[in-house]
Order: sequence, then C-alpha cells, then structure tokens
Amino acid sequence: MNQDFRESSQLTLFLTRWLILFVCLCFCRNLGKSGLRVSCLGLGTWVTFGGQITDEVAEQLMTIAYESGVNLFDTAEVYAGGRWACIFLNLCLHFLRRSSLVITTKLYWGGKAETERGLSRKHIIEGLKGSLQRMQLEYVDVVFANRPDSNTPMEDPFPCTCCIVRAMTYVINQGMAMYWGTSRWTAMEIMEAYSVARQFNLIPPVCEQAEYHLFQREKVEVQLPELYHKIGVGAMTWSPLACGIITGKYENGIPESSRASMKSYQWLKEKIVSEDGRKQQAKLKELNHIAEKLGCTLPQLAVAWCLRNEGVSSVLLGTSNPEQLTENLGAIQVLPKMTSHVVSEIDHILGNRPYSKRDYRS
Amino acid sequence: MNQDFRESSQLTLFLTRWLILFVCLCFCRNLGKSGLRVSCLGLGTWVTFGGQITDEVAEQLMTIAYESGVNLFDTAEVYAGGRWACIFLNLCLHFLRRSSLVITTKLYWGGKAETERGLSRKHIIEGLKGSLQRMQLEYVDVVFANRPDSNTPMEDPFPCTCCIVRAMTYVINQGMAMYWGTSRWTAMEIMEAYSVARQFNLIPPVCEQAEYHLFQREKVEVQLPELYHKIGVGAMTWSPLACGIITGKYENGIPESSRASMKSYQWLKEKIVSEDGRKQQAKLKELNHIAEKLGCTLPQLAVAWCLRNEGVSSVLLGTSNPEQLTENLGAIQVLPKMTSHVVSEIDHILGNRPYSKRDYRS
Amino acid sequence: MNQDFRESSQLTLFLTRWLILFVCLCFCRNLGKSGLRVSCLGLGTWVTFGGQITDEVAEQLMTIAYESGVNLFDTAEVYAGGRWACIFLNLCLHFLRRSSLVITTKLYWGGKAETERGLSRKHIIEGLKGSLQRMQLEYVDVVFANRPDSNTPMEDPFPCTCCIVRAMTYVINQGMAMYWGTSRWTAMEIMEAYSVARQFNLIPPVCEQAEYHLFQREKVEVQLPELYHKIGVGAMTWSPLACGIITGKYENGIPESSRASMKSYQWLKEKIVSEDGRKQQAKLKELNHIAEKLGCTLPQLAVAWCLRNEGVSSVLLGTSNPEQLTENLGAIQVLPKMTSHVVSEIDHILGNRPYSKRDYRS
Amino acid sequence: MNQDFRESSQLTLFLTRWLILFVCLCFCRNLGKSGLRVSCLGLGTWVTFGGQITDEVAEQLMTIAYESGVNLFDTAEVYAGGRWACIFLNLCLHFLRRSSLVITTKLYWGGKAETERGLSRKHIIEGLKGSLQRMQLEYVDVVFANRPDSNTPMEDPFPCTCCIVRAMTYVINQGMAMYWGTSRWTAMEIMEAYSVARQFNLIPPVCEQAEYHLFQREKVEVQLPELYHKIGVGAMTWSPLACGIITGKYENGIPESSRASMKSYQWLKEKIVSEDGRKQQAKLKELNHIAEKLGCTLPQLAVAWCLRNEGVSSVLLGTSNPEQLTENLGAIQVLPKMTSHVVSEIDHILGNRPYSKRDYRS
Repeated sequence: MNQDFRESSQLTLFLTRWLILFVCLCFCRNLGKSGLRVSCLGLGTWVTFGGQITDEVAEQLMTIAYESGVNLFDTAEVYAGGRWACIFLNLCLHFLRRSSLVITTKLYWGGKAETERGLSRKHIIEGLKGSLQRMQLEYVDVVFANRPDSNTPMEDPFPCTCCIVRAMTYVINQGMAMYWGTSRWTAMEIMEAYSVARQFNLIPPVCEQAEYHLFQREKVEVQLPELYHKIGVGAMTWSPLACGIITGKYENGIPESSRASMKSYQWLKEKIVSEDGRKQQAKLKELNHIAEKLGCTLPQLAVAWCLRNEGVSSVLLGTSNPEQLTENLGAIQVLPKMTSHVVSEIDHILGNRPYSKRDYRS
Repeated sequence: MNQDFRESSQLTLFLTRWLILFVCLCFCRNLGKSGLRVSCLGLGTWVTFGGQITDEVAEQLMTIAYESGVNLFDTAEVYAGGRWACIFLNLCLHFLRRSSLVITTKLYWGGKAETERGLSRKHIIEGLKGSLQRMQLEYVDVVFANRPDSNTPMEDPFPCTCCIVRAMTYVINQGMAMYWGTSRWTAMEIMEAYSVARQFNLIPPVCEQAEYHLFQREKVEVQLPELYHKIGVGAMTWSPLACGIITGKYENGIPESSRASMKSYQWLKEKIVSEDGRKQQAKLKELNHIAEKLGCTLPQLAVAWCLRNEGVSSVLLGTSNPEQLTENLGAIQVLPKMTSHVVSEIDHILGNRPYSKRDYRS
Repeated sequence: MNQDFRESSQLTLFLTRWLILFVCLCFCRNLGKSGLRVSCLGLGTWVTFGGQITDEVAEQLMTIAYESGVNLFDTAEVYAGGRWACIFLNLCLHFLRRSSLVITTKLYWGGKAETERGLSRKHIIEGLKGSLQRMQLEYVDVVFANRPDSNTPMEDPFPCTCCIVRAMTYVINQGMAMYWGTSRWTAMEIMEAYSVARQFNLIPPVCEQAEYHLFQREKVEVQLPELYHKIGVGAMTWSPLACGIITGKYENGIPESSRASMKSYQWLKEKIVSEDGRKQQAKLKELNHIAEKLGCTLPQLAVAWCLRNEGVSSVLLGTSNPEQLTENLGAIQVLPKMTSHVVSEIDHILGNRPYSKRDYRS
Repeated sequence: MNQDFRESSQLTLFLTRWLILFVCLCFCRNLGKSGLRVSCLGLGTWVTFGGQITDEVAEQLMTIAYESGVNLFDTAEVYAGGRWACIFLNLCLHFLRRSSLVITTKLYWGGKAETERGLSRKHIIEGLKGSLQRMQLEYVDVVFANRPDSNTPMEDPFPCTCCIVRAMTYVINQGMAMYWGTSRWTAMEIMEAYSVARQFNLIPPVCEQAEYHLFQREKVEVQLPELYHKIGVGAMTWSPLACGIITGKYENGIPESSRASMKSYQWLKEKIVSEDGRKQQAKLKELNHIAEKLGCTLPQLAVAWCLRNEGVSSVLLGTSNPEQLTENLGAIQVLPKMTSHVVSEIDHILGNRPYSKRDYRS
C-alpha cells in the first residue's frame, strides 16, 4: 500500500506543486521581523513521530501537510530519539526543494549522557550537528533553544545567557542554521538574550515558541506582542488543542485509547479530572455550539481562533493521525469567519481575556 | 494654631531627633542594588498635597512622618501644581540635613503647554529644573520617569527609550539628580531601558514605582523580583490601601465625603460597585478578623502585608489626614506579626497568589 | 592478555553502559556557569601516560574510569610527548560517543623548538592543531592555557593577556575547542583575562585548573569562590593526593620504587624530608584514624575531602596503576560520610583552614 | 605658649620652606602609575584628631610633619566628626600653597542618618561635598572609597561596583577630586573596579590603602604588587605600628593610659593578651636588639621596614603626640640601613614572609 500511495502521491505532487505554492503564498506570514515567510500552520512533531505511529502514517501526515501548503516543519532532537522525524523529513526532501521549506529543530534533550542535554555550548553545537547528520540536512532554518517545563524532574543546568547567545551565533556563522529562537522562555529571558546580543555584537533570537490555546493566553496575547514591537521577535505557537483537551474526547471522562490514559501523561489526566478541568469541559460544550453555527468542528474552531491572532506567525499542529491533520488544516477555511463578533462571543464564554498592555502599566 | 504647633514641634524635634535616627536605622532597606538606604515606609504626596487639605495639615503630615523615622518623601511636578509639595518640603529642610533625606520626584505632567509634558528630553530637563526651583533644592535623589495610566484619555507621546535614558543620564551628570527610576513601566520596558543603557554606556534606572496592594500583586511579586535579580532594579510601591478601598469605608456603599464620590474619581466608584468590587469587600471582612486577632486595624494589616515582601524597598503612604498617617505608620509594629502562617492565611482568603516564575516559562 | 581484556571489556561495556550513564547522572556537576556537566571525578594523565606505564595498563585505566562513570579526560600536549595519551583516547572513542565525553587538553610545552612552547598565538593555534591531529579529534571540549610552575628554570615568555584571550577566541571560533580555561593562573590573572574579554568582546575563560589537597587550600577555598561569584569561572582541581604524599607511602622515608626517588622529582623528595614534610606525615597518621572510622582508605578520604567542596567541579585523578585508580574512584562512596562533623574534625587536625573573605578585606 | 609657638614656627617656616621642598623631593615616591608624587611618609589622622588631643597638639603635629617634608595628609569624614581634622588642615593651608600638598579623604561613615554612610552615589557625592565644605577646600587630591572592617557590627549595604565607579568618576569630573582610590578592598574587588571602568569608559582607581606592618604582610607584599604591575594601582599603607602593638608599650601587659585599655578597643586588648599576641611580644624583643644595633628605636625600625618595600608609595603615620611623631619621622634616617642582610634577619625572626607570586600560581 505504501508503494501505491507513493505513486499516486507522485502524480498528485506533479499536478499540485504549483497549486501548493500558490496556496502557500496566500496564507504565509512573517516570522517576527526576520523577513522569513512561514505558513500560518506548521507541522509539529511533538509526540507524533514516535513509537505511537508507523512509518507509513508518518509519511502520510507529511504528504498531507505539504499538499495543503504547509512549508514549516518543526522537529526536535528529542522527539522519538531524533530518528523517525529525520528519516521522514529526509524523504520529504525528495519531493520539494530545500529552499521551499522552513525546517526548524529544538535543542535540549539529546542523548542519554549528562553532556548530551542542556544548553551548554558543547550540546548546542554537538546536538545541532548530530541532528543535521541524522536528517541529512546541511542546515536548519531556525534552531530553538528549548527549556524543560516545570514537569521536568531534573535540576536545570542553565548556563549564563551570554554563553547561549554566543553558541547560537557560532552555529549560525558556521552555516548550520539560518536563525535561532527560544522555546518556553519568559519574556524577560528573551529580552535579556536580546540585550546581551546587542551589547556583545552577537545575533539575537528571531522567534519564541510558546504554548497557546483557548485556555492559555496571557504570554502570547500580552507579553509577546510587546516583545515583537520592541525587538521584532515573532511567535510560533504549539498545542492549539491543549494536548487534546479541546478535541472534546475527554468530555465524558478519559477513554482508554487516549494519550491521557498513558502512564507518562499522568499530569494530563490529573488536569482533566480536576475542578478546573471540568469547568473547561463545560466551556467547550458552549464553544461547540459556536463551531456548529460556523459549520466547523471544535478543533477547527480552536485552531482558527489561534490564527485570528495576527501576532502569531505560525500555529504548529501536532496530530497523530491523517484524518485529524486534514481536519485541523481545514481551520484555514474557518479563519475568515472569525469576525470580531464571533471572537468576542468566544471571549465571553472563556472569561479569560488577559489585560491589555495598557492596563499592565499600572 | 500653626504657631503653637511649630513651637511644640521644634521642642519635640530637639528631643526626638536622636530617637528618630535610631528608629530609622531599625527599618531602612536597600533601594535595589544602588546602595541607597530608604525607610521602608515613605510619604507619598499623591492626592494628598492638593486642594483637598490645608497647609497646616500638610505640614503636620510631614512632621508626623519624619518623627516616625520616614526618610523618603515622594513628590511630583503634577501634584497640586507642584506648589504645596514644594513649599512643605522646603520647610522640612529647616529641621533636618538634606543628606539625611531621600527626596524623589516624578516627571510627566508639568504645565499646560503641549511641550510641558511627556518624557521628551526637553521636558525631562526643563521639568526637573522647574521642580528643583520650586522646591528650592539643588538636586533630588531619584527622578522618576512616569507614564500616564490607562485612564489618561490623551494619546501617548512616548519617545524612544534611548532618548529617555540619554536625557536621564544628562540630568544625573548635571548633578540635578542622584539616580533615576521608572514609574508604571512594564518589566519589559525597564529591561529595554537597562539594555539601552548598557549598549550606549548610559546610566540605567535603579528603581520602579509600582502599584501594590492586596488586590494587585503580580507585577511586584513576579516580574519585579526577576528584574531585581537580573539587573538590580528595586521596587517602591504605592497605593497600599488600593485608593482607599482597603480602609473599609466603602463597605456599605460610597459615603458622600469620600474620594470615590468625587467627579474625577468616577472610575474608582465604578470599580467599587462592580461585581469584583463587592467580592473584594467580602474578602476585606474576613481580613478584618485577622487584623483583630493581631490587634491592629485593617489598613495597618494591609500596609504590613506589603512590607512583608522583602523585595519591596519602600511602601509609599498617601493619606490625607494626620490620624490616618499615624495609623498607617503603626504598620511597622505589625510587621513582626506577619508570620508565614498569617501570610498563608491571607493568601487563602485572597485567592490571588500569582504563579511563580517556573510556571511562567510554559 | 590484552585481547582477553578487550573482549571481556566489550561484554562488560554492553551490559554496563546503562549503569554507567546512570551513575554518571548521579555525580555530575556544573563546570562553572558554562552549563557543561562534568563528572566530579576526572582522569588526569599527569605523569601517568608516559614512560612509566605500558600501553596495556594505560588502556586498563581508561576502561576502569569510564566504567565508573567518569566522563572527563584531561590530556596535555606535553604529557608523554602527546603520543600515548592520544592513542588511548582514540581507542576510547570506539566505545562511547564523542558527545558523551569531555576531553580537555593543556597547552604550554609542545615541541623542542623555542616557538613550540609558551602561550604565543602561534603556539596556541599550532599546538592545539597538533594535539587534535595526534588524538584524531575534531575538537577538544576545553583547552587550557597552562603556565609553568615555580620549578621551571626557564624565563617566562608570558605574552600580554589580551593576546592569549584573542588566540583562544580564535581557536574556539574555528571550532577547535568548545571552551577555554586557565591552569595555574592567579585569581588576578584570570580576572584580567575576563576583563580583557569583556572590553574587546572576546570569549572569557570558563574554568581554572588548580592544585588542591589537604595541605594546599587557600586558592581553591578562598580565591576561586570569589571568582566564581563574580565571573562564573569554575574550578577543576588536580593532585588530590599531593603528588602521592597523602598515600602514606612516605610515612617511613622514601621507598626506592616511588616517584620521589626519581631524579627529576628531587624537589618532591626535599619537600618530604623537610620539617614541614615530617609534620604533614604526623597529621596523616591522625587522618588515617578518621579514614578507618569511616571504613575507607586514606587516599579515599583525601579525594572525598576534595569533593566535599561544592565549588570544585571536578577532581582530576592522576594514578599510575589500576588498583589505585579503583581505590580512588571509591571516594564517591565516601562522600556522603563527609558530614560537617567529620569535616571540622579534619580541619582541626590540619589546622590550615584559610581565612574567610571577610578577613581578607582588612 | 601656642602664641609663641606660632611666631617661632612662622620664622622657621620662612627659612625652611625651601629646605622642606628640597627634602620632600628627596624622598617622594610615585603614587602607583598616576604620576602623582607623594612623600613616603604621610600624616594619617586615624584616632589622632579626635577627643584624645587638644587643638594645640594637633596643630603642633601638623607643623612637625610638614617641616619634615611630609606633603601627604590623610583625612576622613568620620575622624572626629570631620571637625578637627578640617580645621587644622585649614590652618595649615595658610602656611603652604594648596598645590604643594596632597590631601586625601576617606568616605564611608559620614553622618548618623542611614543615608549618610556607605558607598551609594548619594553618599559619595554628598559626603565629599560636605567634607570639602568643612575643610574649606575646593577639591581633595584622592578620595578613598572605604569599607568597614570585620569588626563593624552593621550590615553592609555595598552597592554594585559599577555604581561606585560611576559616582567616583562623577566627583572627579566635577572637579571635587583629582583621583580616587580604595581602602580595605580585596585585590579582586579592585580588579573588578578597574574592569568596570575599562568596560564603561569610566575612571579607574589609582591607589589602595591597606594595613601593613611586621605582623600583616600578605596583601601588600603579594597581592598589591601584582595589581601594580597589571593596572598601575599604588599602595598607601596605614598602621605601621600595628595599632601601637609594635611600640613595645604592651610588653608587660596593658598600661592603663594606653588605647587598648579603652572600652571601644576591647578587640585590641583581646588581641594583645591572646597566645598570638604573646608570641608577637617575644618577637618584638628580638627585633629590639636589631633596632639597638642600628641605633634606632623599635618604632623607627618598624616604619623603616615598611618603607624598605618599594611597592609602598607612602606609609601613613597616626600618632597622638609630637614626640612620637618626631620619632616616627626619624625612620627616614634608618631607611638606608635596611640592607638586604638586615631585612632577611628580620624575616627570620618574624617567620611570616609570604609566598612570592611565583609560588602562588601553583
């Protein structure tokens, strides 16, 4: 079947390549003030390209994405041990020119040795070199300096900002990356990186990857816009469906097949069954009515809602099956329906609109 | 009566000077990493020294403050047209050495002409010069670059940060001020000012003046500590009683004589009668029980609660009558009673303890 | 026998790789503020990999070290003419990924020509290039600028600090090293290097290699901590057994087979038989009692005592036979027994606890 | 008698002025690499110009000093409340041209208020301004940033080095001082001040004031020479007689009239009667024999011993009576007798010769 799929896909590709590129043009956005154009939807590989799915499915996801005009593929050395993500990206390169793609990677968790993680100069250089080798790429477009989230049990050997900026400048000057960005950093940390870069004549970051969805808004809606205006840093967001919470599949408890029932996602389960979690499910029911009115699904509404924020350069989708991906990509068609009326209706249901910058001053 | 007051005050002064200095030693704190020592309670002149009170009362306030060990007096060119504040400070200088006082001023609203406001270099220099002349001072200790709050209807002619930092460096190098600080700036704006100062070898700010009370915590408890650790900026806070909301006088609606019944405080009135406002009144009732247990009044508890935050260099008091000032200054005696148990009890009632930095990263 | 050893070692490796990595996690430390994680015990190759031992023994030492979780291997161009150290490190790379190892080298004594030594830009670049070629490495993790010790008869052609910092920055920017450090520099010299790096926008050092043992404490316990807090420089220490003095083998004079009986170690012999030397032997006897109480040997106590200092990133072991290395590595198990009580008992016996920083100010 | 003394002194002055200046030339030394020439003996005002002595005696001391060629007068805002020192210096200025004198002052303890001490920008500027007013001077030659010693009970509000350097640069640029120096700083702190000055284009310190006598040698003999060679900082030393310990007056216990019997000098008393103190008295007896051989007193030997160190720009004398001052000034005649033989004889008695820089490197 893979063989068949490949052949038909090759035919399709020949025909749709130009169409893709045209569509792509239509919904590309600027990545911060870098001048780089990225599709407003990107394919994240978070949880996706791991043990959960087969190679065939992964390749299918890849194909669906770029046939829909996605030019942004976000990988990471840690995802699935860096193996599958790389293989598929490698395959993908046989179909499209490298220059038409924006491939990013995230550094933090590499190998198992102590020296193979963190943001030491050693790991930034070795980790990126290793990732490039595995992906058989000469360079990535953006390399992200990740930070472990608060669920990470280990101590954080976070080096001085100056060291990170210097190492990032090095890999860019070596041609191993075009730009560098941050992931999960506070606005202040990004500002510090910018400050250090200015002071020591190094290269500042162009983009922050942040979590953004209906239930988590402040950083992307309040802090990053300020950063954008001050220093031109753009926003790439992930988890538009809040780790699957917004798909509605947890409406009646946690199904056995879902991610939240897995052992390592205990925290997710706890979040869902908490009081806050139940309140969220109630709000999702209301949002579902809006989705029905607009003639789309709840996930599509959630993704389109992210896209309505023009400060977001790209929303990274991280689905594990082709149908879901196709559904999510359909959010593009919902975007024009996100009128100010609809948006304020959603705001009213959510009740979590963050204070604007103006109020923040007081 | 003023004559009597003056005479008795002179006698008192002669006797209490040493006592004052001793008390002062007991509760001074460092202003950021500048090395400057300020009393942990300061006398703000916000709303105070204006049309609302007579000269006698103002002088009385001043005397009470410095007899209680206050060495920090916060003025502003805008307050009461710069007239009364200055006269009283001037009087005050006849009793104590200039070097034992920390006098600050805020620039933003000066005269009525377009050029007499904002933070243009022209207004920073002219505004400060004017303030010094009116106060008959050679210099102020800290000059604050103020920003209009969100109720200000006018457009915001905010110049580039670099211009502000350069003008502030100028007035400091001219000997017109010892340090400069910011007021109502976002953490990001302060970071930018620091960054610009480092890049162009100018003088960075040492302090931010921010609103801080039981119902507004995030900036002072989350953002400013990060700034302090990164760049040594200290925090001076104002409105410890939330514009009088925490005095309890609005418990049963808005009395006619109160500030909130005044026309220009329409926004305050709206805030009090809103749903949020009513919830706050309920919480204040509970806090009153704690205050009773500790043997103090609610305002004293509120001020001591601000003081318990060691990141706060000084809490500015802005009362309009002597009894209230004496009461508020009594918060110093309540401070030792703010045990971790009491603090977490208050946190539980308020339910608004901000997320720690760790959560902020996601 | 080597063949057998290799085979069995390969089997062992396959089984113990995971164990190693786990152990390694347990006792890695940060190298200054660089973010680099190094095992708290490292394998120095001082005196070891030279004429004194055979290739088989050297390989054995290497294997024992990394099976015990050591990830830090300290080489030098001067040691044994750069030959053996390199060969063995090269072998070692067949078993473990380069990125899991921290390989360092020291520059000062290279070849015999006048230009092949010192810290001239010429020798830093040529010397490091030569070392990398001999070791068949693309880069080292840390390159140390060594300084001759006081026994060196030659005049000191020490170039201006600025030239050294500039050359080090060059080799790092060329990808020949990840970081650079200093060895045997005074705290002042390191501070100067940092100062020069900041002024001319060059790369500052991350680490100082210093002698540290029971009888030499001041630099590591007083000066380097101050450097760490001011500029983030870490400490890697060598000679934990004071050139073998602490093994106890010189208790009854100097045995014929020992290092101290060799001609080039005349200074060591003199040190041992001096009055100070005899006092040290007396103290070692007392320390032996403590070691017995803790159920370890004197060398293990001495190494664990170095490790108890949390300011030390790594202690370099420089033993010449496998049994001794295994014994020394056992110090890790002694570390938890170094309670504050034991430490102060040792301090009492030694009577050489250096003054704290406070006293230093006078 | 004062009247008589004044008249005769005026006559003497007229005759000896040129002689003084000539002598002064003979034993002036460079203050670091600043180009400033200071007499190798200076008149400190430590403990001297306070309640202990009358105005007449103070004036007499002053006269003796400058008639002996002393051009360096070290004052401080704290000494005797800044009052007497200033008055006498003021008188002194009627006899000699300002330009022929090097007048220094130390800042740290000013008034009694919290803001009137420390090294905040506020206190540096106000404290120096106040000192100049009291002394009726337009400027001092060197202003020293003092640090409280370890006997100071109060907490140390020490600001960031950058702030201190910036404030010092300000007072120099305002013409209030010619140079600035440090007092009681560690070598590392001085190096940091230099580094900051270089990085931000500010004025670095020219001199450190440090304690130096027979029983305290390391800082002045090891650390400051390194600083001198690296950054040109000179050394001015105080307490050549170790707070009077070296006068020999404590040989048979503590006389009632001595400083050590005073309450606030409890620490001195404790030092003298300690075991170390008694050992020092024994060594002083031996040194007395050397003094006798050289035909001088013990204090003269001690001062001459300080002067033999060519790295010392000036030794500050702090005596409380004219005879002692004359005696101490006589050390100049002893200096030529301090041959290398005598010096090593003293070293042998003291047994505290610090390691040279070379040994320090290991």
